[in-house]
Amino acid sequence: METRRIGIIMNGVTGRMGTNQHLVRSILAIVKQGGIKVGDDLDNPADEVFFDASGTLQRAKFVEMAAKARKAIYCEKPTAVSTAEALRLYDLCRKAGVKNGVVQDKLWLPGFRKLRQLIEQDFFGRILSVRGEFGYWVFTGHVADQPAQRPSWNYRAEDGGGIMIDMFCHWRYVLDNVFAPVKRLVAWGNTDLPERIGEDGKPYKCTADDSAYAIFLLEGGITAQFNSSWCVRVRRDDLLTVQVDGEKGSAVAGLRKCWVQGQSVTPKPVWNPDIPQPINFYEGWTEMPDATTYDNAFKIQWEKFLRHVALDEPFPWTLREGAKGVQLAELGMESWKQGKWVDVPEL
Amino acid sequence: METRRIGIIMNGVTGRMGTNQHLVRSILAIVKQGGIKVGDDLDNPADEVFFDASGTLQRAKFVEMAAKARKAIYCEKPTAVSTAEALRLYDLCRKAGVKNGVVQDKLWLPGFRKLRQLIEQDFFGRILSVRGEFGYWVFTGHVADQPAQRPSWNYRAEDGGGIMIDMFCHWRYVLDNVFAPVKRLVAWGNTDLPERIGEDGKPYKCTADDSAYAIFLLEGGITAQFNSSWCVRVRRDDLLTVQVDGEKGSAVAGLRKCWVQGQSVTPKPVWNPDIPQPINFYEGWTEMPDATTYDNAFKIQWEKFLRHVALDEPFPWTLREGAKGVQLAELGMESWKQGKWVDVPEL
Amino acid sequence: METRRIGIIMNGVTGRMGTNQHLVRSILAIVKQGGIKVGDDLDNPADEVFFDASGTLQRAKFVEMAAKARKAIYCEKPTAVSTAEALRLYDLCRKAGVKNGVVQDKLWLPGFRKLRQLIEQDFFGRILSVRGEFGYWVFTGHVADQPAQRPSWNYRAEDGGGIMIDMFCHWRYVLDNVFAPVKRLVAWGNTDLPERIGEDGKPYKCTADDSAYAIFLLEGGITAQFNSSWCVRVRRDDLLTVQVDGEKGSAVAGLRKCWVQGQSVTPKPVWNPDIPQPINFYEGWTEMPDATTYDNAFKIQWEKFLRHVALDEPFPWTLREGAKGVQLAELGMESWKQGKWVDVPEL
Amino acid sequence: METRRIGIIMNGVTGRMGTNQHLVRSILAIVKQGGIKVGDDLDNPADEVFFDASGTLQRAKFVEMAAKARKAIYCEKPTAVSTAEALRLYDLCRKAGVKNGVVQDKLWLPGFRKLRQLIEQDFFGRILSVRGEFGYWVFTGHVADQPAQRPSWNYRAEDGGGIMIDMFCHWRYVLDNVFAPVKRLVAWGNTDLPERIGEDGKPYKCTADDSAYAIFLLEGGITAQFNSSWCVRVRRDDLLTVQVDGEKGSAVAGLRKCWVQGQSVTPKPVWNPDIPQPINFYEGWTEMPDATTYDNAFKIQWEKFLRHVALDEPFPWTLREGAKGVQLAELGMESWKQGKWVDVPEL
Repeated sequence: METRRIGIIMNGVTGRMGTNQHLVRSILAIVKQGGIKVGDDLDNPADEVFFDASGTLQRAKFVEMAAKARKAIYCEKPTAVSTAEALRLYDLCRKAGVKNGVVQDKLWLPGFRKLRQLIEQDFFGRILSVRGEFGYWVFTGHVADQPAQRPSWNYRAEDGGGIMIDMFCHWRYVLDNVFAPVKRLVAWGNTDLPERIGEDGKPYKCTADDSAYAIFLLEGGITAQFNSSWCVRVRRDDLLTVQVDGEKGSAVAGLRKCWVQGQSVTPKPVWNPDIPQPINFYEGWTEMPDATTYDNAFKIQWEKFLRHVALDEPFPWTLREGAKGVQLAELGMESWKQGKWVDVPEL
Repeated sequence: METRRIGIIMNGVTGRMGTNQHLVRSILAIVKQGGIKVGDDLDNPADEVFFDASGTLQRAKFVEMAAKARKAIYCEKPTAVSTAEALRLYDLCRKAGVKNGVVQDKLWLPGFRKLRQLIEQDFFGRILSVRGEFGYWVFTGHVADQPAQRPSWNYRAEDGGGIMIDMFCHWRYVLDNVFAPVKRLVAWGNTDLPERIGEDGKPYKCTADDSAYAIFLLEGGITAQFNSSWCVRVRRDDLLTVQVDGEKGSAVAGLRKCWVQGQSVTPKPVWNPDIPQPINFYEGWTEMPDATTYDNAFKIQWEKFLRHVALDEPFPWTLREGAKGVQLAELGMESWKQGKWVDVPEL
Repeated sequence: METRRIGIIMNGVTGRMGTNQHLVRSILAIVKQGGIKVGDDLDNPADEVFFDASGTLQRAKFVEMAAKARKAIYCEKPTAVSTAEALRLYDLCRKAGVKNGVVQDKLWLPGFRKLRQLIEQDFFGRILSVRGEFGYWVFTGHVADQPAQRPSWNYRAEDGGGIMIDMFCHWRYVLDNVFAPVKRLVAWGNTDLPERIGEDGKPYKCTADDSAYAIFLLEGGITAQFNSSWCVRVRRDDLLTVQVDGEKGSAVAGLRKCWVQGQSVTPKPVWNPDIPQPINFYEGWTEMPDATTYDNAFKIQWEKFLRHVALDEPFPWTLREGAKGVQLAELGMESWKQGKWVDVPEL
Repeated sequence: METRRIGIIMNGVTGRMGTNQHLVRSILAIVKQGGIKVGDDLDNPADEVFFDASGTLQRAKFVEMAAKARKAIYCEKPTAVSTAEALRLYDLCRKAGVKNGVVQDKLWLPGFRKLRQLIEQDFFGRILSVRGEFGYWVFTGHVADQPAQRPSWNYRAEDGGGIMIDMFCHWRYVLDNVFAPVKRLVAWGNTDLPERIGEDGKPYKCTADDSAYAIFLLEGGITAQFNSSWCVRVRRDDLLTVQVDGEKGSAVAGLRKCWVQGQSVTPKPVWNPDIPQPINFYEGWTEMPDATTYDNAFKIQWEKFLRHVALDEPFPWTLREGAKGVQLAELGMESWKQGKWVDVPEL
């Protein structure tokens, strides 16, 4: 059997996401399993992949270099801090004729795959609403034994930080792909905690939003309300939970698990504050079992991208899709700063 | 010991709220316990109370009659469907010189009392954000053995229905009194389920909102995000839960119970979707014990109103406060219909 | 308001079923609640009801007397021990022009109502199979402190006893009404325990079947397998459980409760006898809540029969339907004795 | 100490059963433990074993080759799809003078061993009836994340598939060996789900039965009723449960566990559907402890066969016994297709 080596230049994989998700759990795991079986006819052994996990503000120059060198380009999100710039990078790749892609890992999280399975099986009937709760408490670093667990640039707008730019990229592809395209939104951001301790042990002023609230209206009439915050203590099933309510049933998905409640088992609550709530509202839900093996979400998308490079298989998650994520974040900022609803135009 | 009898004309107490909350659990319970001890000096035995729990659209004419007859007036909320009308009723009472009040029962729910205790004890430090989730699944009545558990007028705008007008009255006095005055809001409503079965067994068209989403900005910079819905299946601690996140600690309150997590016990979560979430996020919270006996919330306020009538004790929850609730609901409708943020002016 | 008294002659209500179910829980309960509200126009006050709960072999003569006296006739099941006789009683009533009915209480058991709700909500998709398990251990009376809990005639064929004649009447109307008409069956009966102690304290020979096995084929291709036994110890959710498996979900109903498992939460079992079964197969099911109030099943049907008598409202559960139950039992005996499958002809 | 090497040619051990049960858990486990201690006198070192786990339709030609080569032959079940063919293979081996055996692993499952222990200890008194429930939900493969967990040939009659041919082989040796010889049966099969997705990702038509119902009459009057299905969701103690009811006690066995209820602890149930069932029918049973170490059932039988080969120890589970299993399956098909009871003749 013929084998084909694909060289991968990995840029910026020094951080948490780059090292753990891309290097260790994706590329090394693929190497360990003997690579990807792509068939017998591999006639273009010169293709090379460029992967970028550098800071958002540094991304453009690397992508430009890679496109010029005619590498296939795979990027972390957000691909830029403005839609115009994100689109420019996509156009640049398109014109250079290089294959390109953006990380949209959450699509392959077991929790979201289970939601898609439920939709496929028409568990919900018509979907009425979606509620997302994302976040956890990121320590400020003022207390020695509770060090900050995220880098300081996340909290500085001038360095490309902010939870809205970080998370709305995700909400865009999740909403578009799992439910329906986002058509309109109103958003609000806030800097809940004004000072944190940096990597240098010194306090710095937080200039970016560390909490963001949004109401998204989706095609077909679904309302999706999402909270994102690094200043919230977690009393729910997971760091990210998405509740979907439909005519025939509801589901709550975490990163891996998913609980469902169909119409026939929906309880009829009693509003009587004089007595302790007689219903345990967690008991009426059933956890979906794992009916398949869920591989690492990043690795799954890496395999798809490598097959795209080697075998020309379709890969819809291009830099154009990445630009859509940036667009939602940018529109969220606009909605927030101008205090108004905004439409999401076609790119 | 001198006793004084207070005659109460109860109007419209045929519905669920009137019968259970006001008649059975409040007035009858007060009668049963031998009335209210008010002291020895009762110098104005002619005062009489008029209580109104009729439909919102019928309220005005009854209040007018009662004011003319110089009764003390106590009303269910919403006191009207427009702020102007609600204020007119208040003015009418004020000019007639009759005592007046509006039901704001949730202030005396054990859950909210515990939140106020936490604030009093400076448990939160600076409060950063408030998240409210209210709602449950109200059956449509299409299935014989799952009859609707709310009256049909709730779902018809032309009859004064709608969840925004119903619930924003509550959110106003809860936010104003427990946290800080509401200064600005954006809201969105939706009719998730377009058809329900009425009391006559026939389908009717739902014209009012059965779900409402809002972001409230409070004086001092707190963001409060509230969802209200009759089309949601409940996977949380209670039918109404309010999460408060502060610099020094967080709390989640239900109708009666309240759970807290201080900064020293805040966990440091691991984002690793490859393994099941290792932290059980419910376990890091501690339930507040009942440090006192919590009487029925409606009854507590009734007692205060009767003492106000009989003893001239202060009663700040006048029809003016009721008008503030109507105002928030009206502004919510305006925000929704016109798609914009709105300020909350002084009344 | 005009009221109308309906006199009821209750025959044979000395046994367990007659006394508890019909007298105490049905008629006395209806009297206690002030009778049945039937409207204002009651123009035929002479109607009278005859109810028969005597032994099956005594039923005919009482029905004949009652029909002659032009009473409305309501009977316990089985209405006879042969289809011909059961049909003759129906014809006799029809020709005499008297209203008539047969007890089919299980249709109003909460468990079966929940199954019907699930079907109404299309929870199952296409139903594939139904499994019924009925029975419990009826003590033989040989041990002093474990007295028999059923009358001795139940175990003597010559007195109309046998579990097949007793239970197949129920399975007929349950299968016909909840699922689909029975078209074909094979049955097997057995006398597991040959001797029991009678009411007189003396041993008697059991000549009737005390266990019965059947496979019913229903219109549309559903296979229904039912076991009935008085010689079985119970390790299941209730004395009677019915499991329904469908393409989209399954349910197990007891007398009052019902558990469901949809396709999305169906576990993927591991067949590995080397380790303890890692799946707890009871945990993947959710109990349906009571969304309505379930009145006594006998009382519900009594009310329907009395409204039929007083108000001419429809009552489909006539003695003809009772004859269908006898027919299934008779065909079961034929299948058993002749060792063959039998078709169920139209009556 | 002298050791003897036995070479084993393993054919067709690429599937699930062959690889896991025979190769990994049996042969490799035996090798790992240092082989089988057989004593010091090994006088026939030329014997070799041929094991066949190929598809049922391929079995004959391999057995013929092996017999010709004078190997000892050990086969998976079913040994053929017709009794005549199964007997021919047995005769062929007998005439060739080669030792032979068939897998009857369930006899050494801890659950069945516990049932045999109970019988040995006369726990049941006279056994009245046996009820078997086997099965689970085999996904059809239509949903991406719920892949089928059995091979597609199982669902095609033309490839030797069908649950009756698969499972009745087991029921034969279980009933014959644990309880009493099967004398008569009626069976019914059905293809509940007509379409599944194959290994190639394409839909195929299911032509074999995926559910089978049977009533077996055993020597001595025991009735045994067995359901087998790949279209059933499991609400019981294990994937296979067998309930045995006897005069003096009852037992329910799963693959490993077994629960018992003696006559003295048998509850007296109350039939009162007006109240929730007051008895928890699971609580009156006691789980039998593991009084010994239960080795893998396949491995135990392998050891016995290897000792039979090496030491001439008796091995009653010959291909003749395997033919009995095929006979029961064939008679089951005949009963189903012709709609009648059939006797089980001596082979």
